[in-house]
Amino acid sequence: MVSRSLPSPVESKDRIPVAVLGATGVVGQRFVRRLATHPWFRVAALAASERSEGRRYDEACAWRLPGEPYAGLGALRLVAADPAACAAAVAFSALDRAVAEQVEPRFAAAGATVFSNASAFRMADDVPLVVPEVNADHLALLEVQRTRRGWPGGIVCNPNCTATVLVTALAPLEQAFGIQEIFLASYQAASGAGYPGVASLDLLGNVVPHIRDEEEKVAEEVPKLFGRRVDRAIVPAALRLSAACLRVPVVDGHTEAISVRLRTEATLEELAAAIVGFRGEPQRLALPSAPSPPVRLHVAPDRPQPRLDVDEGDGMTVHVGRLRPCALLGWKLVAMGSNVERGAAGASVLNAELALTGGWIPPS
Amino acid sequence: MVSRSLPSPVESKDRIPVAVLGATGVVGQRFVRRLATHPWFRVAALAASERSEGRRYDEACAWRLPGEPYAGLGALRLVAADPAACAAAVAFSALDRAVAEQVEPRFAAAGATVFSNASAFRMADDVPLVVPEVNADHLALLEVQRTRRGWPGGIVCNPNCTATVLVTALAPLEQAFGIQEIFLASYQAASGAGYPGVASLDLLGNVVPHIRDEEEKVAEEVPKLFGRRVDRAIVPAALRLSAACLRVPVVDGHTEAISVRLRTEATLEELAAAIVGFRGEPQRLALPSAPSPPVRLHVAPDRPQPRLDVDEGDGMTVHVGRLRPCALLGWKLVAMGSNVERGAAGASVLNAELALTGGWIPPS
Amino acid sequence: MVSRSLPSPVESKDRIPVAVLGATGVVGQRFVRRLATHPWFRVAALAASERSEGRRYDEACAWRLPGEPYAGLGALRLVAADPAACAAAVAFSALDRAVAEQVEPRFAAAGATVFSNASAFRMADDVPLVVPEVNADHLALLEVQRTRRGWPGGIVCNPNCTATVLVTALAPLEQAFGIQEIFLASYQAASGAGYPGVASLDLLGNVVPHIRDEEEKVAEEVPKLFGRRVDRAIVPAALRLSAACLRVPVVDGHTEAISVRLRTEATLEELAAAIVGFRGEPQRLALPSAPSPPVRLHVAPDRPQPRLDVDEGDGMTVHVGRLRPCALLGWKLVAMGSNVERGAAGASVLNAELALTGGWIPPS
Amino acid sequence: MVSRSLPSPVESKDRIPVAVLGATGVVGQRFVRRLATHPWFRVAALAASERSEGRRYDEACAWRLPGEPYAGLGALRLVAADPAACAAAVAFSALDRAVAEQVEPRFAAAGATVFSNASAFRMADDVPLVVPEVNADHLALLEVQRTRRGWPGGIVCNPNCTATVLVTALAPLEQAFGIQEIFLASYQAASGAGYPGVASLDLLGNVVPHIRDEEEKVAEEVPKLFGRRVDRAIVPAALRLSAACLRVPVVDGHTEAISVRLRTEATLEELAAAIVGFRGEPQRLALPSAPSPPVRLHVAPDRPQPRLDVDEGDGMTVHVGRLRPCALLGWKLVAMGSNVERGAAGASVLNAELALTGGWIPPS
Repeated sequence: MVSRSLPSPVESKDRIPVAVLGATGVVGQRFVRRLATHPWFRVAALAASERSEGRRYDEACAWRLPGEPYAGLGALRLVAADPAACAAAVAFSALDRAVAEQVEPRFAAAGATVFSNASAFRMADDVPLVVPEVNADHLALLEVQRTRRGWPGGIVCNPNCTATVLVTALAPLEQAFGIQEIFLASYQAASGAGYPGVASLDLLGNVVPHIRDEEEKVAEEVPKLFGRRVDRAIVPAALRLSAACLRVPVVDGHTEAISVRLRTEATLEELAAAIVGFRGEPQRLALPSAPSPPVRLHVAPDRPQPRLDVDEGDGMTVHVGRLRPCALLGWKLVAMGSNVERGAAGASVLNAELALTGGWIPPS
Repeated sequence: MVSRSLPSPVESKDRIPVAVLGATGVVGQRFVRRLATHPWFRVAALAASERSEGRRYDEACAWRLPGEPYAGLGALRLVAADPAACAAAVAFSALDRAVAEQVEPRFAAAGATVFSNASAFRMADDVPLVVPEVNADHLALLEVQRTRRGWPGGIVCNPNCTATVLVTALAPLEQAFGIQEIFLASYQAASGAGYPGVASLDLLGNVVPHIRDEEEKVAEEVPKLFGRRVDRAIVPAALRLSAACLRVPVVDGHTEAISVRLRTEATLEELAAAIVGFRGEPQRLALPSAPSPPVRLHVAPDRPQPRLDVDEGDGMTVHVGRLRPCALLGWKLVAMGSNVERGAAGASVLNAELALTGGWIPPS
Repeated sequence: MVSRSLPSPVESKDRIPVAVLGATGVVGQRFVRRLATHPWFRVAALAASERSEGRRYDEACAWRLPGEPYAGLGALRLVAADPAACAAAVAFSALDRAVAEQVEPRFAAAGATVFSNASAFRMADDVPLVVPEVNADHLALLEVQRTRRGWPGGIVCNPNCTATVLVTALAPLEQAFGIQEIFLASYQAASGAGYPGVASLDLLGNVVPHIRDEEEKVAEEVPKLFGRRVDRAIVPAALRLSAACLRVPVVDGHTEAISVRLRTEATLEELAAAIVGFRGEPQRLALPSAPSPPVRLHVAPDRPQPRLDVDEGDGMTVHVGRLRPCALLGWKLVAMGSNVERGAAGASVLNAELALTGGWIPPS
Repeated sequence: MVSRSLPSPVESKDRIPVAVLGATGVVGQRFVRRLATHPWFRVAALAASERSEGRRYDEACAWRLPGEPYAGLGALRLVAADPAACAAAVAFSALDRAVAEQVEPRFAAAGATVFSNASAFRMADDVPLVVPEVNADHLALLEVQRTRRGWPGGIVCNPNCTATVLVTALAPLEQAFGIQEIFLASYQAASGAGYPGVASLDLLGNVVPHIRDEEEKVAEEVPKLFGRRVDRAIVPAALRLSAACLRVPVVDGHTEAISVRLRTEATLEELAAAIVGFRGEPQRLALPSAPSPPVRLHVAPDRPQPRLDVDEGDGMTVHVGRLRPCALLGWKLVAMGSNVERGAAGASVLNAELALTGGWIPPS
């Protein structure tokens, strides 16, 4: 495929029509807010469950974000999550796994490129699981996918929110020194569970020591994310990882206590320099949703903190602090990033920007 | 020394007179509450800073515990933290490190046995650092201490709250299988910082990724706690430990995500059996503050939780849940215990009960 | 009817068999915990929805209270909420309004006396709506109810949790001086909404300014509660009341900012004396669940606080503080009480104790 | 004085030099953030206590706001809070009351116009206490003040945060219908107490029923704010007000449950229309910090909520919801506004913009 050049921003009428699937939920609303003012995309369809079909967006959905309610799109009528009802070259999917499993292939078969926050296809070996700063080249799996499945469109996934913060925070170290082992303990925010999600009786002044399937997702997604593309396949990274995922009474922002064993020796200064100097493909391409820098290194010992740092870079910046030696694995640090933007809606949008720039999105 | 036999409870007039040093603070109040109704001890003196000397306890102190204010001792007059002002065979110390460093030796020199929650003498090689379920035999260091320092009394320390929960939770595994490596990530409660402690602006809906000196304390105290007594010294356990200590918006109860590498192979069932069957010296002696069981194993995947479990056994029970394999170290689990009871006031009182039963407390 | 004399506690085998309807919910669990060790009652049946029928209590119910899980009754098999399945003279109802409307009359018709926390029959003019310290004599409505409806048993309701805290706090002033006008602003706890109730995303660090039907319930229940019994009917109190009910991030305990206009002049000292000296029928009868005192007056300006005071008297004590002049109505104060005990489970149990002592419960 | 016309924004070099007094605290930081990018003002001096004099701002101050640390001014050296050290025509004061009492007059005497968030001079009868949407004409008191005190500069105060939200929310009703009586119960945020302010042990999952001096401040400031200027004096409004001020676990944003008795009859529709149509002097003048609209009326029953609405209009919008009848006073509503912006830093800045446009600020 040939890369398209895109003036930025394009004229509104020339923007690419996109659909948001699952537009009424917590992540769906964030998709809508990001896309309502996007320089390259234009919201052409908001899709929700059949129950809501035909209703105005501001009637069917309880908007839960600060700022302009419904991002100015409250008058749009909801349509079915069906390619026929959504005239869009790109679909952003905030669907539940079970629904995504049915719906996303239909869009791909109809020619749309689906950027999905759902877990349904993340581990399929012909589906790119992408964090643009980490493994932009994995997008090339789309070719395999299109050939093998006969889809004119395709599916591109972003990882689980906890895995996303982890691999983005560690990308500078992986690139510079290689990573052999990872220990992760997470302090996850309430919004990671969607809405209504966790009952306030469970979370007020409490820690909930279990999040269903979360540790498993992190364990399987991270090796794929750090994997190498060899020919038309991804060879998972040979690393060992153990994750403990717990929920804490925080609204947005997953904090992660991380230890790593590197493949090569390095000093604290070299680690810090690798993080501070790190730039990824989105920064090189100056994609609209790319934060700069992608990973911020804090030197104050009490940072990052979710309440103070989570919204930096429209929620796309990943924060690293407390870089220090670890008696077991060599190095440890604390990372923090927005589970709802860098780990969900913003992740898919950044993937779409990367794919568009790379010529991976066929016009509808 | 000869062990004394104690009817339980002894007549009030025969109870051993004790002093509480630092009686107005968060831990001091918990000492007072525990001791006000203790079957063996009787509060003879409440000591505070010079500023409060001579004032009634209920005037000098803002009581912050549920239940009867001042535990019925509001009319007591505060005295100086000086052995001359406190006619007591036993002193419980909730003093700050710097004050403890000065004051505790004076009490020991005057004949009192000091049970201290302060960090000042924990790592001194002739001071027993004791969790009765873990290393009751370390009390014998008192002999060395008395000989070397010429004190008729002595100082017995309990560890940092985070270390206490850790070693109590792991004691069954250490005893049955031996522990080589420990990874710890803590989710620590606000009360661990004392009062006023952490500002609500810092902690509401937030995670604070740093607690001063906490990781260092855990790293140095745990090997001593798991150490073997050889002759008149403690040989620290040869284990490697890495701790990441973070603060979360919880009132009481430290949660800990722990991974361990054991010295001998074991199955999940063997680990569970070791925990369920575990009893320590306090349980064998049926000490008044001994919880039964000392370590509760939860099978529900979402337990333990601080808000639901922290007060079990008057805050002395340590909870373990989510026992499962760890890809890095072999096994992982979640532990939780009261930082203010098992990790502070209750810890010192249990030490005193153990010492008294073992004949380690000379009459005043 | 003739009052029965009850030794306290009666032998276990002589205790009155009771059923808990809706035993798996938040209030149901509190009923179970209170009744498991009650000196007069014995849990004979736990009833839940049809879906759970036949299952063990500890399998069908996620126990959410501190202390012994399932209060030791985890092995009981759940039965249908049907009089035939519950051999009980007394039924405690934690049912939702719609279910209560169907089920409670069946129990009453079958001979059981139902003590209900549901709102279904609170305002029926032949149903006693009782807070024992406030209007114990309203129980006499049971006679009207039994005659009119032909029920051998009957239904006794306790009010909405917010109304309960309000009328108990104000009972001393109503009795001593009469109350003409009440302004109420509530700071309500999460547990008032049941489980799962309010989403943590809505309540963490937030105030939710609306609780469905709450202001209306308070406005209609308070006049009935303060009403006089004239012959066989209740004449509602002639008072004016305005309530603003808001939710705050507190687990248990409704705080209420209250202003009142009294019918007779009084000094601050007279008000305080009325509150301090207040005793109700439960205190005179020394009922097992009666707190003493029923209303605690705080003089510390920063009390009552839900986290420190909510559990006093097993959650049955109502707290009053900040008694001071009000420029609009004359006097204002802050009240606080447990919405889940004094305002729900404990309320029904205390009503049952009052009714039993008064001879209002026919044997089954 | 003659009104100056100001291009907006003026060239940076032509901006008016301002000083921030108390620049390191919670409110001081918000002053700095607002002024760093202000179109009319330029930060010329940051003043703090003597202890910090000469230190860089980013070394002396722990920045606690989201966004760019130190608003880009971290390299500025702190100066003494002394007119000689601050070459500024305007001073914004975030000083404590006791310090403000000494320092603010010195600046006024030296020719600066001080816009103060401190309470020291609010009730002085020659000091304007101003919320621009409410009583912009009170600025004229400056003439009296300058004459009487012989100051070339002067002091302008903004009210207490709770009073500010109250009078702004009620301004539309006061103007259209007149207000006779106000009942207020507040749900105040932690940030209102400054930093470190309230201990997290006091506020986590709790309500604190007392805020020192707060009810008194509201009671005295509101009549002055709603007062009429007659000649060279303010005649306080003849209204009766009762306030109950409580603290809740919210970071930013005071919620207020308010009842009002109006002087003239009105329908719900007329009230709503008055609020929706309300514009004040800042909106007419299009001042840089003026929100539009100044008061937002919500129709969703569960709004406003501090977490969702507090930052609208850069924290300057005041929100009103739940407009409904009150059985006691006629009408009730819930208001919410940012205590740290509309109620503190933003308030002073808006006052300065108003004063500048009105020609009340002499050049330095």
